Amino acid sequence: MSTKPYKGFEPKWIKEAAPKDSYRSIFRWGDPNFVKYPKESLYKMMKDKFIMTDDDFRDYPVDIGWETVQLTQKSNMDEKHLKFFREVVGDAYVSTADYNRLAVAYGKTAYDLLRLRERKIDSLPDVVIYPDTTEQVEKIVAYCTENDIPLYVYGGGSTVTRGVEPIKGGVSLDMRMRFNKVISFNEVDQTITVQAGMSGPKLEETLNNAVENFGAKRAYTCGHFPQSFEYSSVGGWTVTRGAGQNSTYYGCITDIVLSQKYATPIGNFKTSHYSREATGPNLNQIMMGSEGTFGVLTEVTLRIFRYMPENRKRFSYIFKDWKTAMDAGREMMQCECGFSSVFRLSDPEETNLMLRLYNVDETPLWKLLDVTGFKDMERCLFLGFTDGEKGYSANVAKNIRRIAKKYGAMSLTSFVCKSWEKGRFNDPYLRDTLMDFGVTTDTLECTVNWSNMAQVHADVRKVCKALPNTIVTTHMSHCYPQGANLYFIFLTKMSSSEEFKAYHTSILDAIQKSGAAISHHHGIGKMFAPWLEGSLGRTEYGVFKALKNYFDPKYNMNPGGTIGLDLKEEDKRFMRDDIK
Amino acid sequence: MSTKPYKGFEPKWIKEAAPKDSYRSIFRWGDPNFVKYPKESLYKMMKDKFIMTDDDFRDYPVDIGWETVQLTQKSNMDEKHLKFFREVVGDAYVSTADYNRLAVAYGKTAYDLLRLRERKIDSLPDVVIYPDTTEQVEKIVAYCTENDIPLYVYGGGSTVTRGVEPIKGGVSLDMRMRFNKVISFNEVDQTITVQAGMSGPKLEETLNNAVENFGAKRAYTCGHFPQSFEYSSVGGWTVTRGAGQNSTYYGCITDIVLSQKYATPIGNFKTSHYSREATGPNLNQIMMGSEGTFGVLTEVTLRIFRYMPENRKRFSYIFKDWKTAMDAGREMMQCECGFSSVFRLSDPEETNLMLRLYNVDETPLWKLLDVTGFKDMERCLFLGFTDGEKGYSANVAKNIRRIAKKYGAMSLTSFVCKSWEKGRFNDPYLRDTLMDFGVTTDTLECTVNWSNMAQVHADVRKVCKALPNTIVTTHMSHCYPQGANLYFIFLTKMSSSEEFKAYHTSILDAIQKSGAAISHHHGIGKMFAPWLEGSLGRTEYGVFKALKNYFDPKYNMNPGGTIGLDLKEEDKRFMRDDIK
Repeated sequence: MSTKPYKGFEPKWIKEAAPKDSYRSIFRWGDPNFVKYPKESLYKMMKDKFIMTDDDFRDYPVDIGWETVQLTQKSNMDEKHLKFFREVVGDAYVSTADYNRLAVAYGKTAYDLLRLRERKIDSLPDVVIYPDTTEQVEKIVAYCTENDIPLYVYGGGSTVTRGVEPIKGGVSLDMRMRFNKVISFNEVDQTITVQAGMSGPKLEETLNNAVENFGAKRAYTCGHFPQSFEYSSVGGWTVTRGAGQNSTYYGCITDIVLSQKYATPIGNFKTSHYSREATGPNLNQIMMGSEGTFGVLTEVTLRIFRYMPENRKRFSYIFKDWKTAMDAGREMMQCECGFSSVFRLSDPEETNLMLRLYNVDETPLWKLLDVTGFKDMERCLFLGFTDGEKGYSANVAKNIRRIAKKYGAMSLTSFVCKSWEKGRFNDPYLRDTLMDFGVTTDTLECTVNWSNMAQVHADVRKVCKALPNTIVTTHMSHCYPQGANLYFIFLTKMSSSEEFKAYHTSILDAIQKSGAAISHHHGIGKMFAPWLEGSLGRTEYGVFKALKNYFDPKYNMNPGGTIGLDLKEEDKRFMRDDIK
Repeated sequence: MSTKPYKGFEPKWIKEAAPKDSYRSIFRWGDPNFVKYPKESLYKMMKDKFIMTDDDFRDYPVDIGWETVQLTQKSNMDEKHLKFFREVVGDAYVSTADYNRLAVAYGKTAYDLLRLRERKIDSLPDVVIYPDTTEQVEKIVAYCTENDIPLYVYGGGSTVTRGVEPIKGGVSLDMRMRFNKVISFNEVDQTITVQAGMSGPKLEETLNNAVENFGAKRAYTCGHFPQSFEYSSVGGWTVTRGAGQNSTYYGCITDIVLSQKYATPIGNFKTSHYSREATGPNLNQIMMGSEGTFGVLTEVTLRIFRYMPENRKRFSYIFKDWKTAMDAGREMMQCECGFSSVFRLSDPEETNLMLRLYNVDETPLWKLLDVTGFKDMERCLFLGFTDGEKGYSANVAKNIRRIAKKYGAMSLTSFVCKSWEKGRFNDPYLRDTLMDFGVTTDTLECTVNWSNMAQVHADVRKVCKALPNTIVTTHMSHCYPQGANLYFIFLTKMSSSEEFKAYHTSILDAIQKSGAAISHHHGIGKMFAPWLEGSLGRTEYGVFKALKNYFDPKYNMNPGGTIGLDLKEEDKRFMRDDIK
């Protein structure tokens, strides 16, 4: 992101693309040619906050990953297995090359990025396979089951839960290259069926251009836009129970998915594809959340929505304080006027940061707010936009305006919302730029009900803030009549993966103890797994084991602790019974 | 229902309440003092259709159930078990009396009613227990598990799937008497927690009067109104995955339930109570649909909605034909204007019957419709009403009007909708009155997507119509952007349970072969169980067995084929693989 030139000292931000086949090309987020770094006033604020000086930004205290990937760990896959895989997918689509193996080993939690900068390679697949068809995946799953070979899937690679990490080696299916095609489009039912490796942007572009692509009557949208959108896959959304930034209107992926096709050790099947049914426990809701541990998701049928951006109404408001803002947000969600598409409410510390990010600190508004009773570090920013049919969209915006006014909010017009939209998918770029100077940021999120929101917010922030000189911002962005998610983002001077892990653990402990659900949409993976059984309860968690034993009795599908299934007893955190 | 006096011969409709402790008092629907019988023109139409004469209505060709219940089958429950049960719930709340045992043996499918008229008692519990508290239920479940005693639950008793039938004898928990209390009410989160035996009307009344009952700020509604509302229970809604007539706006029970508490053979637990979470397979969606086979549902937390009947907009329209009506309905569901609360679209044969039921045949409108191109037995009736915040409700109604007009419909004002509302919960009364003369009516329902709706409608009706002299009406009443349910109601001269079973089987075969989901909201029970595995597929169905083996390895919870779990292999209908 190009910002105004610095007047004073400017840190040596890395603006060049990473070299081909370098470590940096793996751990760095997204488009190699896109750079984002803080504007000068924010840089100054960071220095103050983190007790750093310009000297800390003259050179890189950490590895920047410029070297070419070269591993000491060699592939242990038998030649006879490789031969089989080559026969299935073609010679060119089976690789044991160092770069290709490392490229699918880690996801995008700061723990992964720090480990890569530290050259700490805990996990690697022995072989990477690039499948093209569902039949190929089915053959590979059957073969791995028969030969007891661990099998992992790499979709978009944006997991922040170590979901894709091949802890036991074996095979990793890299879905990005070829497993990303449209299977069918049904305009009558408003559905699309795609291969699981389909990326977010490709899906959205396909739907926006449905008239050209399918001879459709109109354009459509997928309605699912996670922060990781540009590097996320439909399969990843589905198996982790993801949510997009527009979920308050379009629903989470668990609402959007209509049907799924799986290749499992005990056979291949397609789940039912009806909106609702009363035919026993819901198999779609059993498979979503399995995170690859029951088998490999091959195809997904999604509900799609009419693409009508012309009806969108943008808004932003500022509330006096967090309590008032939560009350107003709750009233908006409970008044039955329909739901806003983006609905994002920031706490005071996040509001402070966001108003700076969106340059409000450079306008007279900043002081005006203070003067009119909306005090810095008390005031709360609320922004979003509506979607849907024209009258629906207008009615939601109208009610939001009415309620905001009732709760004493001041409108900031659509300006702040537009600024947020510009940056909504590229914040992760900022992370890499800061990490070059030993400043780390990451997020944790959970679900709360309205009645325990204030308490969870306070409890978890207290633990986050126990680390001195740390910025901790919080918002809700997926809202319901009964509650919302809470997102905790921290930004601090930290450059070791072990230090990160200890801090991360303390926050997750706090979330679990607070009684919140330990994930609203990031999933569990291997990183959150130690908390899962304790969080759900032993009897409840036993259901997951029963399902695992049914689908994958030999434990070859995403093994190594994913959703806690083959986790060592000593790695588990405390049980729910102990909490309250 | 009092109608105008007949001018000609009037059948000997039974208008007196059934005698106390009689068979009739068990099989007859609802309020003993409420009677409903057809008006004279409908009676004439029935005679024509069923090739019957006044002579067929002079006396009762079938048993009318006037006798006092007296069973030959005695209770086989050991005295030591009875002693334990009495200690747990109190002496007065354990019964082995004939009447009490028969009262919980059957549900309300015509198969049950016909069997009771035939005195065909296939199943009976050995003892009926009337629990008061969750702890009592937990003790009983643990005791039955330890002593291998079959355990059944009788909630509202309105099952049409033989869901409650105690095929293996043992214990039946009759929840109606005492297990129907409010546990807690949370206005901040807009939720209520109740015991599973809470009845629909008691819940709704409790919520409508929340200001008086709980000191709440406003009145609420449960939003869930199945046809069986008056004799249904929250527990029954939940374990069967039920849906109410207003589900198009409020959602099915699977959308309304937030959390559930269970007493199972392996322990007691409460599921998570958050709107959405990404913590593995969804336990709430696993337990809903278990129909008592994993354990006994004790408490349910429901989302509640603001009660704002003042915002309701009623409508009714008539479309030229079924194809046009379906297209218009789909456009209404897909246009993203919000959703109507009741959304009910009848096919031509149902339209014919409904317009007669609502006396339109006695007005000039009947002929006017024919003249203006809305021909009898082609035209389709669409009716409903909207709910929600004032602007939301108005916008939905406005868009329905716009789309109806676009598809050439004629408005019938709100008159027909109001007539439907009057009869919406008392249609089952009509069934008993007709059955006294050997005329049987029942319904089957399924889920379809828009793209297979016309085909399923035609295929299933063809099979229904294979029985000569039968009225078969069809409607959709639970609608989604991707599809809807289809409800098939038949009315025919039939008075034997075996004849009924054969006909019912032929229709279910047709539904399964058509590719529709075999139930949208009635559930599976023991009656639909033979079709379930074939419908879902063997690998998919195996999940249910894995869950059963986990929760109830000794098969004591609702045993005897419920959701197909301990069904004999020879009782299963064909497999999905054989269908297409």
